[in-house]
Amino acid sequence: MSNDAITPLRYDAAGLHLIDQRLLPGETVWLRFETAEEVAGAITDMVVRGAPAIGCAAAYGMALAARRLVATGATGAVLEDGLDAADARLRRTRPTAVNLFWALDQMRETARAARASGDPAHVAEALEGRAIELQEQDVAMCRRIGAHGAPLMPDRGRVLTHCNAGALATGGYGTALGVFRGARDAGKTLTIVADETRPYLQGARLTAWEMLEDGFDVEVIPDGAAAHLMARGEIAAAVVGADRIAANGDTANKIGTYGVALAAHAHGVPFYVAAPLSTIDFATPTGADIPIEERSADEMYAAMREQTAPASARPRYPGFDVTPARLITAIVTDRGLARPPYAQSLAQIAESDS
Amino acid sequence: MSNDAITPLRYDAAGLHLIDQRLLPGETVWLRFETAEEVAGAITDMVVRGAPAIGCAAAYGMALAARRLVATGATGAVLEDGLDAADARLRRTRPTAVNLFWALDQMRETARAARASGDPAHVAEALEGRAIELQEQDVAMCRRIGAHGAPLMPDRGRVLTHCNAGALATGGYGTALGVFRGARDAGKTLTIVADETRPYLQGARLTAWEMLEDGFDVEVIPDGAAAHLMARGEIAAAVVGADRIAANGDTANKIGTYGVALAAHAHGVPFYVAAPLSTIDFATPTGADIPIEERSADEMYAAMREQTAPASARPRYPGFDVTPARLITAIVTDRGLARPPYAQSLAQIAESDS
Repeated sequence: MSNDAITPLRYDAAGLHLIDQRLLPGETVWLRFETAEEVAGAITDMVVRGAPAIGCAAAYGMALAARRLVATGATGAVLEDGLDAADARLRRTRPTAVNLFWALDQMRETARAARASGDPAHVAEALEGRAIELQEQDVAMCRRIGAHGAPLMPDRGRVLTHCNAGALATGGYGTALGVFRGARDAGKTLTIVADETRPYLQGARLTAWEMLEDGFDVEVIPDGAAAHLMARGEIAAAVVGADRIAANGDTANKIGTYGVALAAHAHGVPFYVAAPLSTIDFATPTGADIPIEERSADEMYAAMREQTAPASARPRYPGFDVTPARLITAIVTDRGLARPPYAQSLAQIAESDS
Repeated sequence: MSNDAITPLRYDAAGLHLIDQRLLPGETVWLRFETAEEVAGAITDMVVRGAPAIGCAAAYGMALAARRLVATGATGAVLEDGLDAADARLRRTRPTAVNLFWALDQMRETARAARASGDPAHVAEALEGRAIELQEQDVAMCRRIGAHGAPLMPDRGRVLTHCNAGALATGGYGTALGVFRGARDAGKTLTIVADETRPYLQGARLTAWEMLEDGFDVEVIPDGAAAHLMARGEIAAAVVGADRIAANGDTANKIGTYGVALAAHAHGVPFYVAAPLSTIDFATPTGADIPIEERSADEMYAAMREQTAPASARPRYPGFDVTPARLITAIVTDRGLARPPYAQSLAQIAESDS
């Protein structure tokens, strides 16, 4: 069975504990945060990353804010203002993370309902309970993705992934890596081939770390080696996560994903995208309508703090790319599989009961 | 005009000076070597890299050995044994570098002919002269590649390269980067888009550095961004070097080259290989017959000295890959262009007068 212990966040009476993802894999350090302000700093500083994990962290930030306000005797408008301030602070951390705003909306709704009781302690308990519930729901959703994706995996073989769509990026279990975990839970034996994923090395640092912790056999490759290994028939399937999926199935994900898809296509290797239904943006018709964030050179020109390129060379660092739907074999969601043509299959899944 | 001053090696009365390529681009440090033993260490330690540059360095190592032997009064069998020892030492440095053995064979032949004069000073002078000549010949060959490739380049545009097939890898001027220099000498205006080229970052560290030194406009991209930029129509052409070209045109080059070729093909971007005729191995029928060196994780798991992957993850780091001839638009050699079908065109070029 997969190791449920792998999660980027743990909450207890002492506060919110986050594994410092900036230090992996060299050091495994858990940091403790006791206030919403501290949690906001952790999100901004990338102690925690991955949109679902950020959402969970922000929810716990609200729970911590309520705990502290109630402990200092805040009631009525003082309690309400304090929670609003924490909410506003947490919203300023990562402006592009959709899950962040969704989770804070959930917490705001929970606080509003709980305040009706007139008991400040009840508000704190309700927010704490809701944050725990949000993380549990996220893990359960990942487990459904894993169960739906497991049949797509070979009984035995080497499977490639790019970036980290894993337990560390979610409440736990992961999306793309959830498919690998689901396959193992179904009795399959996979070797995980992790693209390094330059520039931030999420594959080498985070995917390799968490899959090894979970007992998988793991190989790390330079991004440039994926096409070579596929040409040699060494890769049975590729599974990646998604930052946004357009209505036609075009998928935005970490820079480098498109090249993996092209190589997979050239060699008949199935290429799967694993993501919750909430990642599908039906308001975006195609990948051409997805804006691509251009990131600064900081991550690229200083590999793990050492200078790697001349400062006067202009960086060009798109954070993401778009893989056209025609290169995607199937999209694995928490509500099941979508197959081409995606314009129809994705809409059908969205309308189905979960 | 291109800057002739960019070379990885300079030879004078004080010894052989090598730019320490391990420290670029952070520091520009020239190291001085006074003996063949020291030069051998510099080759092993990657102070100098790139097959033609290694060949030049080894030739100068023999010149230094002769200089020192003659200065200490060595004659006859003592001189001969001393030169043999230096030759053997230099051959043990990088066993896969074909140019190394070729250059040392040239030096051995020069020594044999010079010894016939019976004058030890003449032997030292002849070896010194031959080493200088070998470097000058290498630069001249690169310039011919540049002249042949220049017409293939756009008058103005962004051109992509992978790894460093530049002045730093040769006696000077470079092969793939020689094509860009040739285009500029022909009045064209290019922006050089350098793939970082993980794991050793030859693109980010070396290509960016030498093209900036030479006054080019340079962009550095993560390897994974090449396909994305081609999809956006931002790349006019790709030019790479070659480690070995099979008789049918299949080309082995730095890992990641094949992925660039697949992406170029998918988007109609011309993909050129630039290499001297000596890189074509007519004894190797196809790319399937080219052995691929698997390198250790040292370069990959420690990006610029910091740990980037868990030590217990198995590395898979093929140093090179093979691009099938069908993806190559033309091969630019010092004797002119080869076009498909390469089995015929390469053989014709080899038989032509240079």
